Amino acid sequence: MKLISGGVCAAKGFKANGVHCGIRKNRVKRDLALIVSDVPCTAAATYTTNLVKGAPLTVTKQNISNGYAQAVICNSGNANTCNANGIEIANLTCSLLAEKLGISASDVVVASTGVIGQPLDITPIKNGIPSLIDGLSYDGCDYAAEAIMTTDTVKKEVAVEFTVGGKTCKMGGIAKGSGMIHPNMATMLVFITTDCKISAEMLQKALSSDIKETFNMVSIDGDTSTNDMVTVLANGMAENDEIVSDGDDFKAFMKALNTVTVNLCRMIASDGEGATKLLECKVSGGKTLDIAKTVAKSVICSSLTKAAMFGADANWGRVLCAIGYSGACVDVDKIDVYFSSSKGTIAVCKNGSGVDFSEEKAKEILLEKEIDIIVDLNDGEFSSKAWGCDLTYDYVKINGDYRT
Amino acid sequence: MKLISGGVCAAKGFKANGVHCGIRKNRVKRDLALIVSDVPCTAAATYTTNLVKGAPLTVTKQNISNGYAQAVICNSGNANTCNANGIEIANLTCSLLAEKLGISASDVVVASTGVIGQPLDITPIKNGIPSLIDGLSYDGCDYAAEAIMTTDTVKKEVAVEFTVGGKTCKMGGIAKGSGMIHPNMATMLVFITTDCKISAEMLQKALSSDIKETFNMVSIDGDTSTNDMVTVLANGMAENDEIVSDGDDFKAFMKALNTVTVNLCRMIASDGEGATKLLECKVSGGKTLDIAKTVAKSVICSSLTKAAMFGADANWGRVLCAIGYSGACVDVDKIDVYFSSSKGTIAVCKNGSGVDFSEEKAKEILLEKEIDIIVDLNDGEFSSKAWGCDLTYDYVKINGDYRT
Repeated sequence: MKLISGGVCAAKGFKANGVHCGIRKNRVKRDLALIVSDVPCTAAATYTTNLVKGAPLTVTKQNISNGYAQAVICNSGNANTCNANGIEIANLTCSLLAEKLGISASDVVVASTGVIGQPLDITPIKNGIPSLIDGLSYDGCDYAAEAIMTTDTVKKEVAVEFTVGGKTCKMGGIAKGSGMIHPNMATMLVFITTDCKISAEMLQKALSSDIKETFNMVSIDGDTSTNDMVTVLANGMAENDEIVSDGDDFKAFMKALNTVTVNLCRMIASDGEGATKLLECKVSGGKTLDIAKTVAKSVICSSLTKAAMFGADANWGRVLCAIGYSGACVDVDKIDVYFSSSKGTIAVCKNGSGVDFSEEKAKEILLEKEIDIIVDLNDGEFSSKAWGCDLTYDYVKINGDYRT
Repeated sequence: MKLISGGVCAAKGFKANGVHCGIRKNRVKRDLALIVSDVPCTAAATYTTNLVKGAPLTVTKQNISNGYAQAVICNSGNANTCNANGIEIANLTCSLLAEKLGISASDVVVASTGVIGQPLDITPIKNGIPSLIDGLSYDGCDYAAEAIMTTDTVKKEVAVEFTVGGKTCKMGGIAKGSGMIHPNMATMLVFITTDCKISAEMLQKALSSDIKETFNMVSIDGDTSTNDMVTVLANGMAENDEIVSDGDDFKAFMKALNTVTVNLCRMIASDGEGATKLLECKVSGGKTLDIAKTVAKSVICSSLTKAAMFGADANWGRVLCAIGYSGACVDVDKIDVYFSSSKGTIAVCKNGSGVDFSEEKAKEILLEKEIDIIVDLNDGEFSSKAWGCDLTYDYVKINGDYRT
């Protein structure tokens, strides 16, 4: 497997585009994205567990309930959530697009991201659809990736090439992250495409399994969005024998999917609102997988740990504190903690107590842009990883006045 | 019942003091506090649920296991947590103090707050105890309240006068709050004294019941400290008939206790690290008490809601979002949300959808220092309150470089 370029257009038969249609009147930025497959695809998705759900999620869930889809449309600037006519607008978006594309409205995945609770006007979307379709191209991923951004500062796209049953397959994805990121079950907005041939059932199985270790292990600010959604479209144009059960082919597919999702997780975490650093918490020695995951997530979510990392302060007591209140059953007196970056690794806590370490060396390590917080629970064989970012002045600035 | 002055010295027979003994070498501030009753007291306490527990909590728990105590000693500047010799140092603190006071070491409540994982040197404590005792006085509460502060910007003390069985009783408390505040079961450091006569059993019952609605409903940053502790000492000098069971006297005591604790909660929340505003989330219409509490706590903990309040931005979608991911079973389509302050009240969401409101009026309301976020679930009879503060640049600043 190798990383390649092209994002959601890397796989055969996928076109994409993004245009500025004017959903946010005060900002000229592409705000409407489209991904279309030349042929129908099997489709899988996961959604936020937030009880307050964006209207597009309800519509998408209904549309892909048969396991098939062919196009994805997504606007930024308005979440179409907590609006009395939200479902109607989301359905109308699908039918307007489907009509122009000559496909069924029930083959459209629709998504929205932005402010909650402001009515979404269909007019700019309706007016934007013709140019959105006109500009579709096999190398249009960049435009789509840009159009789904809100406070994201960089486009997030990745693609891989892998082999299934002797056939070369490709898979790529784009993501929108930044704030209100603490996915549970699904996540932010992620659109993945592949030309691998795989049944809808196996595609859903692959996605549902993968997100538990990837998107659900990312947190920017502990707030689980109302509009989180990950979708995968597989159009089968690589002409491999369809994956319809477990086995080597499914394993190869899972590995490709995991490479795409982990890359997107890291991009989302490192571009968290206001973030200056990517944090990865690597937990080993857990008695169970659940314990390792709970500990990793708790550390990555701790505001105090995040602020300490912003300040390049080796305040490991906050890591211990976050492990202690995580709810995971751990033996505190066995825990070792290290900080690590490209500048080296330093032990700061052994058996639950502090050890002497060079503050100078620790500072040098923590001034880097990518920091690993390594926790060894010394209590079993299970490991986990979680991703997050530091808590900075800019997070407060961005969120103190996001809406107005 | 009326509010009075005097804090922990308001009740008959309680002296207090606070001195600078030099635990933090780089900061000249009172760092050692003492509260002593003229006679033995019944005692009750609750402690953090963090698995990583400060050594002083273990020692205090042991000391008051018989239901009695007579003195409280507390240092700031070092949490005496995650130190290999922590228990030894905490015990030594008790015995050094007890010897000079002529009481038993097992009648001492010991507490610490400050940095985790740095060995606590007994020398400054040992050297500080004589002047700490010399300076004890019946109006020394201010010094003790100051000595337990870390990043707190104001002293937190309160006292009330109430009547039990025809006798005038007094009760007062001091608190240390500020950061790493998200209590679960117990909380930050709170020391309460009363001259009301009450059995150890009923005292513990009163405290354990009260904190569920008070300290456990406060959150500054979602981080549950390793050293949270609330203690109450009751010395019986008001000469009321001892409270040994439920009834009117116990009710009067509970009401006094609740007045003290709610006042301290509000002080702790409004002096949260970096806070510019006190937030109170008032939830009504819950189907169960648990639902009302879960919703109130989730809203008060949401980083995005907190940052919006800092920016005086009426971004109510974040309130809905936090309710949706709280885990509480609510009917989203019934929820109403209001923002309120001394400048008025404004409805922003009805039946789960946005309503038109004046942004200007909302801004005027949210620019105040005390904001109520009012949520009506319209689904039952249960209510709850939670307290917190806004998320500001200064929170990040304080915690980006707290330790070094």
